[in-house]
Amino acid sequence: SLIKPINVHAKKRIRWRMASSFPKAVDVIYGGGKTICDLVREMTDGMFDIRIYAAGELVPGLKVFDAVQEGAIQAGHTTLYYYIGKHPAFAFGTAVPFGLIYRQQEAWLHQGNGNKLINSLASDFNLITFPAGNTGAQMGGWYRKPIRSLKDLKGLRMRIPGLGGKVMARLGVSVQVLAGGDIYPALERGALDATEWVGPYDDEKLGFYKVAKYYYYPGWWEPAPSIHLVVNKKAWENLPKEYQEVLRAAARIANVKMMAQYDVKNPPALKRLLEKGVKLERFPDDVIKAAKKEAFDLYEEIASKDATYRKIFEDWKKFKKETSSWLGLNEFAMETITFKGV
Amino acid sequence: SLIKPINVHAKKRIRWRMASSFPKAVDVIYGGGKTICDLVREMTDGMFDIRIYAAGELVPGLKVFDAVQEGAIQAGHTTLYYYIGKHPAFAFGTAVPFGLIYRQQEAWLHQGNGNKLINSLASDFNLITFPAGNTGAQMGGWYRKPIRSLKDLKGLRMRIPGLGGKVMARLGVSVQVLAGGDIYPALERGALDATEWVGPYDDEKLGFYKVAKYYYYPGWWEPAPSIHLVVNKKAWENLPKEYQEVLRAAARIANVKMMAQYDVKNPPALKRLLEKGVKLERFPDDVIKAAKKEAFDLYEEIASKDATYRKIFEDWKKFKKETSSWLGLNEFAMETITFKGV
Repeated sequence: SLIKPINVHAKKRIRWRMASSFPKAVDVIYGGGKTICDLVREMTDGMFDIRIYAAGELVPGLKVFDAVQEGAIQAGHTTLYYYIGKHPAFAFGTAVPFGLIYRQQEAWLHQGNGNKLINSLASDFNLITFPAGNTGAQMGGWYRKPIRSLKDLKGLRMRIPGLGGKVMARLGVSVQVLAGGDIYPALERGALDATEWVGPYDDEKLGFYKVAKYYYYPGWWEPAPSIHLVVNKKAWENLPKEYQEVLRAAARIANVKMMAQYDVKNPPALKRLLEKGVKLERFPDDVIKAAKKEAFDLYEEIASKDATYRKIFEDWKKFKKETSSWLGLNEFAMETITFKGV
Repeated sequence: SLIKPINVHAKKRIRWRMASSFPKAVDVIYGGGKTICDLVREMTDGMFDIRIYAAGELVPGLKVFDAVQEGAIQAGHTTLYYYIGKHPAFAFGTAVPFGLIYRQQEAWLHQGNGNKLINSLASDFNLITFPAGNTGAQMGGWYRKPIRSLKDLKGLRMRIPGLGGKVMARLGVSVQVLAGGDIYPALERGALDATEWVGPYDDEKLGFYKVAKYYYYPGWWEPAPSIHLVVNKKAWENLPKEYQEVLRAAARIANVKMMAQYDVKNPPALKRLLEKGVKLERFPDDVIKAAKKEAFDLYEEIASKDATYRKIFEDWKKFKKETSSWLGLNEFAMETITFKGV
C-alpha cells in the first residue's frame, strides 16, 4: 500500500551545529559562518539545517578545531593558522607573511594543490576543510609613533599574534599577547606601543585611532587570509552526496561574499578614519626587505625539520612564483593604470 | 493507503536547456556553463537537470539572449556586452574600457548596486542575469609591428570588437570585424595588422604568435569581463525557491572557478609563448592616456542621450572611485611588494 510518487525525490532531514571562532561584533567574518547556514537551508528547503553559535557560546573561539575533531559538533567556522601548534603547515591554509595575494590564494586552494594538501593534513585530525571567507590584504596596524626605519622596531611593544609576531620578534619587536578587549586600554596608558587588527572597517569599531594615530600599510603578514569551514570527517561522510555539494557550494560563496563585503565596507571606513586625523604611512623599504628575508628564513627552518611542511611549502612557493609572473605583468599593469593613472 | 514518510521531503524533477555563446574549443569559458549544469545536478541529486549546448548547436552564439528572452530555451551562458545594441548599459555588466578590475567588478555586482541595476534593465527583456565567469584582465593583443606611440595607431588595421573597437576607432585605428577563424589568415597575408583575443591560454591555441610577434599588455578595454548566466524570467519564477538558490549558487561558483582556472592556466601559456620568441610590450603612456580620455568621453556622450545609461554609469563611476581609494592603497601596496620586491 505504499505508493511511490512519480517525479519526486525523498530527502533526509539533517540538523547540525556550527561553532564560530568569532564574536558577533566582528560582523563580516562571523557573518561568513551565518552565510553558510543560510545558503544550506535555502538550497535544501530547510531539510539540512545548521545552527551557528558565536565564539564562547558552545566552545571557546580557539577550541573550535578540537570540538569538531572530537565530533562534539559537526562543523566550525575558524582560521587554520590558529592551530599551527597542531601542525605548522596549517598556516598555508590561511596566510603567511609575504604569502599569496587574494587571486593567488583562491587559485592555489581551488585549482592548484592547496585544498588537497591542506585536507591531506586535516584528515589526520579527522577533519575536512573548505575555504569560507577572506579579508583581503589586512592593514599593518596602529602605532603611537612613526616607524621610519628598521631601527624604530627595536624594543617596540606590539600586539601581533601568529607568524607575523614571530617575524616581528626576529626584527627586535617585543611581541605582546593580548585579547581583543585588553588592547585599547594598554595602548591608552602606554603599556603598548602598537597593535595590528584587521582593516579599516573592523579597526574603526575598536577606536584605536584615538590612542595611536599612525596607521601603517600594508599588513604584509596577512596578504589574503582565508577563513575556513571545518567539518568532522564522519559527519561529512554521513551526508547524502547532494548535501555535501550544497555545503561545499555554500562555503565557497561565503568565501567570495566576505571578500566583496570588505571591499565595499573598507573604503568608507578608511575615509572616516582619515577625517578623524589618522596618519597613513607605508612601511619603509628596509622593514619590508628585512621582514621578507626573516619570513622565508623561518619557513626554511621549519621545513628542514618537517617533511610534510616541506612538501606543502615547496608546492606553495612554486605556485607563488609561477602565478606572479603572469599576475605581476598584465593584472598589475591594469591595476597600475586603474589606481595610478598610467 | 498513502503513507506520508517522516523526515523526508518531495522534490520536483525539472529539465532545462542552456545555450552557450561559446564553442567547446574556448574550453575554460565554455566550461563555465558546464560547471553550472554539473553543480545544479549534483546539488539536487539529478532532480534539476540542465543540458548545455555549444554555440550554434541550438542557436547561434550571438542569439543566445534572444532565444532565452523568447522562452525558446530557459537559460543561456553568454556575455551581456554582445547585446549593447539592445541597450548600451549592458556593457557595464561585462566590462568597459578602463572599467573595474576583478575585485571591484565582483564587489560592485554582488555587494554594490551592480546586479540590481543590470537586472532592472534585463527585466525589460524578460530576463534575470547572474555573473557566471570572469577572465580577469585580458591581454592587449597581437601586432605585426610595435606600437611605440599614439601615432603608430593611425590607420592600423585591427580586429577589435565592441567598445574597445569604438575607442580604438577614435584613436585612428581602422577597426575590422572578423570571425575567430578568419583572423589568422588575414594576419598571415598582411590584410590585418593586429588582433586582440583573450589572454595567453586562449591566444596560444589560435597561433597568432606565428604571424604577429608583438604581444601588448594590458588589455585596457577588458579589465575583468564577466560572463553571465541569463535565465528566462517565467522559467525562473516557475522554479521552486530551493532550486532558484541552487542555480544562483552554481552561477556564482562558475564565476570564481573560471577566474581561478585562468590564473592557473595563463602563467605556463605565457611562459611557452615567450620561449617561442614573442615580444612582450606594455602600451605606451600616451596611448593609455588618450584611450582613457576617449573612453570616458564616449560614456558621457551615451549618458547624455539615455537616462538609464546615465543612472547605471553614475553609480558605477562612484563605486569605482570609492573602492579605488582603498584597493589602490593597501591591496596595491601588497601586490607591489609581492610582484616587484618592495
